[in-house]
Amino acid sequence: MALSKNKIQEIRKLHQKKFREELKLFLVEGTKSVSDLLASGLHVREILATESWVTRHSALCGKADITILSRAEMDRISMLTAPQEVIAVVATPHFEVTDINPAQPLLVLDDIRDPGNLGTILRTADWFGVLQVLCSASTVEVTSPKVIQATMGSFTRVKVIYSDLSQYLDSIAGNRRILGTFMSGSHIGDIRFCAGDILIIGNETNGISPEIAMRVTDRVHIPATCHTVSHAESLNASVAAGIAMFCWMG
Amino acid sequence: MALSKNKIQEIRKLHQKKFREELKLFLVEGTKSVSDLLASGLHVREILATESWVTRHSALCGKADITILSRAEMDRISMLTAPQEVIAVVATPHFEVTDINPAQPLLVLDDIRDPGNLGTILRTADWFGVLQVLCSASTVEVTSPKVIQATMGSFTRVKVIYSDLSQYLDSIAGNRRILGTFMSGSHIGDIRFCAGDILIIGNETNGISPEIAMRVTDRVHIPATCHTVSHAESLNASVAAGIAMFCWMG
Repeated sequence: MALSKNKIQEIRKLHQKKFREELKLFLVEGTKSVSDLLASGLHVREILATESWVTRHSALCGKADITILSRAEMDRISMLTAPQEVIAVVATPHFEVTDINPAQPLLVLDDIRDPGNLGTILRTADWFGVLQVLCSASTVEVTSPKVIQATMGSFTRVKVIYSDLSQYLDSIAGNRRILGTFMSGSHIGDIRFCAGDILIIGNETNGISPEIAMRVTDRVHIPATCHTVSHAESLNASVAAGIAMFCWMG
Repeated sequence: MALSKNKIQEIRKLHQKKFREELKLFLVEGTKSVSDLLASGLHVREILATESWVTRHSALCGKADITILSRAEMDRISMLTAPQEVIAVVATPHFEVTDINPAQPLLVLDDIRDPGNLGTILRTADWFGVLQVLCSASTVEVTSPKVIQATMGSFTRVKVIYSDLSQYLDSIAGNRRILGTFMSGSHIGDIRFCAGDILIIGNETNGISPEIAMRVTDRVHIPATCHTVSHAESLNASVAAGIAMFCWMG
């Protein structure tokens, strides 16, 4: 069955943030991500796959609504330079700050802009059992294809909430320790993290913004090892987040 | 002075690996990378910049050979979607295994394929003072534009050697501890690393190859924190490398 032009256009719309937000739908591509998706509680609207993929993954598909496409059709709706044999159309889950469990670890992202970094941070958070992440409104959109791809399926397990960070941090002030990574502060290896802590990671270029920095109770730092006069000015945000989560939860 | 069509073509050739290898030249784009470059011992053949950039960075330029270009010309030779105001043409440095200092820490990369990962790993290595990195021949080329960009200037400080890993590891066997990150092994936080250790990071999908794994003396592991039945299957290679280098050198 050939896919109608209209249908292809409908799906291709979801390559754009504007339509993902308007339609509250996003695309998930590739076997690993789709199989994590089908094992999750997320609402899969539709699966588009080649006949060969469906044959090889019949156990996975269960009662999902599947449309069989040709390779050429898959190539037309794919967002990747190396198109996959399966794409799912998924309803965007919506979480609010009231969904945050105060007894569980919370990672806060203050303006992470690079999709690869956000995806990698969510994958690392999933690895270390940090299953709720609060993002500033300026943080890159989690349903962007590059983010979804970089999470390697972790978008199905980590709850991502977009909200005003200052407002949330003020609402819990005094109850939880709020740690932030900075260019100076206590050696991160010396911190005795508690599961109930909140950890803030800042923007790739500017770090944690002044407005959020003033709400941090404990400044932590990943020290450089200096053999030479000069060295890297900073760590990549997802590497810093990885080291911080390792110290916290590892 | 307008740049000749020939000259533009010459420079654009360096967008391709084939010509970078043939001409032993590569391109470095942006103020941060070019300023690190000019402070390094690397041989800068030529700098191409807008007049406005040169005016703002006259102190930086010193006696470098600078060609002034228009914004439109810069856009034509740029490799980036957001072209910068300065591009340098640089002679590719060449290192061999005989350049490895056996008293210094050595990071070994077994088939890192993603340019962003290689760049990020070199940036992290620079941060932690791991200033020599031995790569398998299959590891992505360090002078690729995406690698250079992701290093954020660290390509000027970290010595990158491409060679046969098995041969090198056999040549030093018995003299240095060879650690590798695996999906099982000693908890990486329990290892007492020495500066003279060798640390191996494997491929993004397959980890350390069997041929190299058999040469590892100490298997180390970054444990996941399991609150739930399922979690991320693995960490991103540059995050795993970051955590390992933090444990080693941090």
